[in-house]
Amino acid sequence: MGEEISNKQVVLNNYVETYVKKSDMSLRTSKIQLKIPSGCDGAILVKNLYLSCDPFILSRMKKLEGHYIASFTLDSPISGFGVSKILDSSHPNFKTGELVWGFTGWEEYSLIKDPNILFKVPDKDLPFSYYTGILGMPGMTAYVGFFEFCSPKKGETVYVSAASGAVGQLVGQFAKTAGCYVVGSAGSKEKVDLLKNKFGFDEAFNYKEEQDYNAALKRYFPDGIDIYFDNVGGKMLEAVLNNMRLNARVALCGMISQYSLEQPEGIYNLLNVIIKRVRMEGFFTSDHYHLYPKFMEMVVPLIKEEKITYVEDIAEGIESAPGALVGLFSGRNVGKQVVVVARE
Amino acid sequence: MGEEISNKQVVLNNYVETYVKKSDMSLRTSKIQLKIPSGCDGAILVKNLYLSCDPFILSRMKKLEGHYIASFTLDSPISGFGVSKILDSSHPNFKTGELVWGFTGWEEYSLIKDPNILFKVPDKDLPFSYYTGILGMPGMTAYVGFFEFCSPKKGETVYVSAASGAVGQLVGQFAKTAGCYVVGSAGSKEKVDLLKNKFGFDEAFNYKEEQDYNAALKRYFPDGIDIYFDNVGGKMLEAVLNNMRLNARVALCGMISQYSLEQPEGIYNLLNVIIKRVRMEGFFTSDHYHLYPKFMEMVVPLIKEEKITYVEDIAEGIESAPGALVGLFSGRNVGKQVVVVARE
Repeated sequence: MGEEISNKQVVLNNYVETYVKKSDMSLRTSKIQLKIPSGCDGAILVKNLYLSCDPFILSRMKKLEGHYIASFTLDSPISGFGVSKILDSSHPNFKTGELVWGFTGWEEYSLIKDPNILFKVPDKDLPFSYYTGILGMPGMTAYVGFFEFCSPKKGETVYVSAASGAVGQLVGQFAKTAGCYVVGSAGSKEKVDLLKNKFGFDEAFNYKEEQDYNAALKRYFPDGIDIYFDNVGGKMLEAVLNNMRLNARVALCGMISQYSLEQPEGIYNLLNVIIKRVRMEGFFTSDHYHLYPKFMEMVVPLIKEEKITYVEDIAEGIESAPGALVGLFSGRNVGKQVVVVARE
Repeated sequence: MGEEISNKQVVLNNYVETYVKKSDMSLRTSKIQLKIPSGCDGAILVKNLYLSCDPFILSRMKKLEGHYIASFTLDSPISGFGVSKILDSSHPNFKTGELVWGFTGWEEYSLIKDPNILFKVPDKDLPFSYYTGILGMPGMTAYVGFFEFCSPKKGETVYVSAASGAVGQLVGQFAKTAGCYVVGSAGSKEKVDLLKNKFGFDEAFNYKEEQDYNAALKRYFPDGIDIYFDNVGGKMLEAVLNNMRLNARVALCGMISQYSLEQPEGIYNLLNVIIKRVRMEGFFTSDHYHLYPKFMEMVVPLIKEEKITYVEDIAEGIESAPGALVGLFSGRNVGKQVVVVARE
C-alpha cells in the first residue's frame, strides 16, 4: 500500500444555467494513495502540474441531454486539459517520471484509467505549461483551423475574434507567417496593445468600444475579409458575413459570446454566404490529432527562433482555479489562462 | 432596312418591396426591325422561344444598392434565361438559324449586344425548352451543387427542400443515381406525389402540413442528414441544422422562403455547425460553367435512356409571363416554370 496523502480537488456543486460563478464550484480535500489500486491494470497515477482553462469546460458544467459531450458529475472533480507527471504506471507504454498532456482531473493527483488518450511531452526545452496552450489543444486548434480549414493564400485578409486568447494569438501569428494581412479584436485596451505590439497583428480593435461591428470591420477591411477565424459567434459573425469577399472562408472554432446566453443570438444574413460564395466550416480539434507531429515540426522551431510569441496568464495554485475559469468568460485573462498546481 | 414588326415586352412598372404582384409588370407592344442596327458590331438579333421563371429574377426587381447584381431598369423589359433562335448576326461565331440559350429579354425579339455569354444548343433531339431547365442553368445548379459541393457517398442520406422545383427534382434524381437515400419536401399533395411516384424520391412530405419541421425531419431521418441541398433557407435550414450527422454538408443554393420577407428569419443554432463539423457552402452556378460539357455528357444519356424524369409547367404566350413569375413565389407551379413565347 502506498502512502495516503491529501488531494485537493475542484468539484462541481450544481449544474450551471448561464453564467458560471465561483460558487458553482468548491474546493475539497480528499485522500489518495500514490499507487495504482489493484484491479486498475493499464491505468496511470499522475501528479497534475498545469491545468488549462478552456471555454468548452462551461458546456460540461451544464445539464446536457443528448449532447455531444457528457455533463460533469456533481460533487466530483471537474476535468479538462492538463500537463501531468506520472508517479505510478501499470501501462506498458507509460513510465514513472514521464510527462504527459491531455485530459486529467482538476485535482492535485489523478488516477487515469485510460492513458491512451494522452500525449507524451515530446520536447522538454520549452515550458511545460505550453502543453496546455501553444503546444497542446489550443495550438492544434489554431493550426488545424487556420491551415486546414481556411486554406490561406499570401496577401489575403484575415480577421480573428477573441484574438488575444490562447487560440487567437496563434492564428494571427500563423497568418503573418503565411503572408496575410491580419486584424484581431479583443475586449480591452491592454489586449489590443498586445495584439499590435507583441503578436504582430497589422491592426487590432477593442470590440467593446465599437457601437457598430459592421462599421468597424469596414474600417479595417475596406475591400472585405477573405478569412474569418471565428471564436465568438453571434453578432460579430453576423457583421463579418456582411463584409466577406468572394470565395471567403469562415472557420467556426467556438462561440464564446453565446455560451452564457439563455438564448443564442440569431444570424439574419446567411444569404451572404450564397452571394459571396462563402465556405463556412465547423471543426473539432480532436478529429485532427493525427496532424500533431506535423504541427510540432512547424511550431517548435518558430518558438525557439522567437518568430512566434506566446502569452500566458498564470494563476497560482489549485485554489485559484475556480476564479481563473470564471474570468475566462468575462475576458479577464490576458493570454492563455493556465492554473499552476505544481511546478514539478 | 429590315421590316419593322411589333415586339411584345414585359416591362417593370416599379421596384418591388416584398412580394411581386402581376401589377408590378405591364405588357407593352414596342416595334423592332429584324436586322442588326448599324453600329452594333458583334451583336445578334434573336427570336425568343422559351423564357425561364427563376427565383433570382425577384432580386433584380428590387431596388438594390451595392448589391451583387444590378436592379432592372424601370419601364424596360426585364430579362432572364431563355432559349432563342438567331434571326440575324454580326458576330462571327453565331449564325442565323442557330439556337442559343442564356440571358435574353422578356420580349418576343431581342437584340443581344454581347452574345459571348450565350451557349449554343448542342443537342436538338431533346425539347428546346429543356435548356431553360434540366439542360440549362437549373440543371447545372443541381449538378454543381450536389456533386461538387455535397461530395455524396453511396448510402448517405440526402434532404432536398423545394424538391419539385426545377433544381430540386434533379438533385433528388442525381442523389438516387449516386446511391443515396433521398427525401424531399414540397408545398402540396400533388407535388409530394410527384416526388415519390415520378422522381423516385424515397420519401417526401408537404412542409405546409408540418407544425414542427424538426419533428418531420426526425421522422424521415432518424439517424440524421448527411447532405442538405438548401433551396429555401430560414426556419427549414434551422431545423436541418438540428438534424445533421457528423461531417454533414449543406449546399446553400437559394433562400426562396426569405426573398419576400421584410426581414429575413434568424438562424439561432449555428453552434450545431461546430458540434456536427458541418461544411456549409454557398455557390453561384455561374462560377462553374466550365463544367457544362462534363455535365451534358452525364445528363443527356440519362434523359435519353429515361433514367431521369423532368417535369415542366408550361405557360402559353408572353402574356402569361407575369402571372407565371408571380406563381413561382407562391409555389403554384408544378415542376420547372417555363413561358413559351414561340415554338420555333
